[in-house]
Amino acid sequence: MDQRVRTIGVDLGGTKIKVAVVDETGTILRKTRVATPTEGGSEAVIREIVRAVRELQGADAERPEALGIGVAGQVGPAGDTVRFAPNLGWLDVPLKAALQTQLDLPVALLNDVRAATWGEWLFGAGRDCENLICLFIGTGIGGGLVCGGRVLDGSSNSAGEVGHVTVDLHGPPCTCGNRGCLEALAGGWAIARRAREAVAADPRAGAGLKKLADEQNEPITAKLVARAAHRGDPLAGQIVAEVLEALVAGAVGLVNAFNPRRLILGGGVIEGLPELVGQIDLGIRTRALKAAWEGLQVLPAQLGNDAGVIGGAAFARRSFSLKGEPS
Amino acid sequence: MDQRVRTIGVDLGGTKIKVAVVDETGTILRKTRVATPTEGGSEAVIREIVRAVRELQGADAERPEALGIGVAGQVGPAGDTVRFAPNLGWLDVPLKAALQTQLDLPVALLNDVRAATWGEWLFGAGRDCENLICLFIGTGIGGGLVCGGRVLDGSSNSAGEVGHVTVDLHGPPCTCGNRGCLEALAGGWAIARRAREAVAADPRAGAGLKKLADEQNEPITAKLVARAAHRGDPLAGQIVAEVLEALVAGAVGLVNAFNPRRLILGGGVIEGLPELVGQIDLGIRTRALKAAWEGLQVLPAQLGNDAGVIGGAAFARRSFSLKGEPS
Repeated sequence: MDQRVRTIGVDLGGTKIKVAVVDETGTILRKTRVATPTEGGSEAVIREIVRAVRELQGADAERPEALGIGVAGQVGPAGDTVRFAPNLGWLDVPLKAALQTQLDLPVALLNDVRAATWGEWLFGAGRDCENLICLFIGTGIGGGLVCGGRVLDGSSNSAGEVGHVTVDLHGPPCTCGNRGCLEALAGGWAIARRAREAVAADPRAGAGLKKLADEQNEPITAKLVARAAHRGDPLAGQIVAEVLEALVAGAVGLVNAFNPRRLILGGGVIEGLPELVGQIDLGIRTRALKAAWEGLQVLPAQLGNDAGVIGGAAFARRSFSLKGEPS
Repeated sequence: MDQRVRTIGVDLGGTKIKVAVVDETGTILRKTRVATPTEGGSEAVIREIVRAVRELQGADAERPEALGIGVAGQVGPAGDTVRFAPNLGWLDVPLKAALQTQLDLPVALLNDVRAATWGEWLFGAGRDCENLICLFIGTGIGGGLVCGGRVLDGSSNSAGEVGHVTVDLHGPPCTCGNRGCLEALAGGWAIARRAREAVAADPRAGAGLKKLADEQNEPITAKLVARAAHRGDPLAGQIVAEVLEALVAGAVGLVNAFNPRRLILGGGVIEGLPELVGQIDLGIRTRALKAAWEGLQVLPAQLGNDAGVIGGAAFARRSFSLKGEPS
């Protein structure tokens, strides 16, 4: 009688592991969240994932049919190994096989931002759309591309690194080794860097930011810059204006190159500065090619922090061609 | 006995119309080239295309089965109308219907750079490759993207405008209305502009370029800059170095975002400065993400000026699912 196809989505980050049982409509039936173990290496993390998944399974009369896991790191071309995950300290971890063996479930592995793209595409701001770009602007910047109704993997499974498009070839250094990347101008870490440098360079102009940071007993972060900008602090406002300029430049390039129907903006920086969505939209309409922007919709992401688990679960469903798949 | 499937490819530019009969292996069986009429509007141009096609058909015992035409302009989402072609002075010309009626052949219409991408993909440097980017650097810069074995059209048929990715958000103005586009730094017109400005600003440094232009009785063009750079002129060398820097920045962004297996470089600027191919390759390996470049091949385009007619003919074959189609 129950036609639901349940799959499990896991979102594995450097600080948290999120696990959810999701049905074929993208609805989360149950979820849990645990801290990512920081000791014991990948074995400890895998043990914790298995424990959390079993706990969720135990509460359920019906067994989920597969599991999809998005990992904050680089997944190998075959989709079985986490090649490099700096926030986890992982190098070449055969995560898919480990989880399949321990959980006796088919497991599909992908990058966490790719998973969030699957979520937003099928069940969030991207529903019923064949061509879209997701741009997630958090501490770093990543994204995903859907073209002709397919999520692009690229030739070695690394497509979607849209935080590393160059928007200012003489710009500041990026953590990737290049300079002037979109992320180096508009990622959360770059906003914090820029603000700290500005405060150090001109303490008078930086007095407002400094005071807010002292009051809240926290360092100068992108979140703090957003808050200060909303309170009218001129330096914070200037920094946010520069972030907007970089985001428009990056978005214009992507829109001109891909001609998507939708550009979906999510991540912590957008959540802290939601007005950026409309401003980026306006910037694109001012600067991109008319043929590229005239049918474009610029939308905020809808699934927030659940995008990863919902997308991971959907990816598992699609990977193993389970029933309940809408297309 | 003859299993050949012949289709006609047409490449319609602002100065020349190229027409070829092409078989299913991408081989040109016969071709002709006529000047694009500059008077008489779109009717005169269409008349000239029809005349050239009939002439080629007349020489052939076997009638080609379809025609594909690439146009230097923007083709509407349905692929039936040329919406805007500045070099032809066209606005909303229903080219597909006009040619179908007059030639009594199925006609497929696409952008000229997209046609060249089809050509390079199926029969040139992109053979047997499922994920690639073509970057044609001529007077302007355009390109095409093949992802998962499909040429990307985008949501309104304008995908591939890779000349208008922003690489220097504080850079010089572009003809598109934006600033700092790849084309505004590395397109032929931009190279000429930069050289003329440099010569005017510093006649002493510009003496070599000026002399070469005077000797050859021509204005300072990108071709002239390339020639001067090869002769060791320091200013021309500096301009070429800046062009390289911009091309690397643009290529790095595209490679990181798409993760192609091949990057194919063609167009007049590359033909004039063929050493750029290896230099761009090296630049990508220095600046792009390792996951994106480690499986990448950077190659020169192979079909030269024939890419458009070969690609147009292939596009027609694919559009009408004619036999002889390899995949």
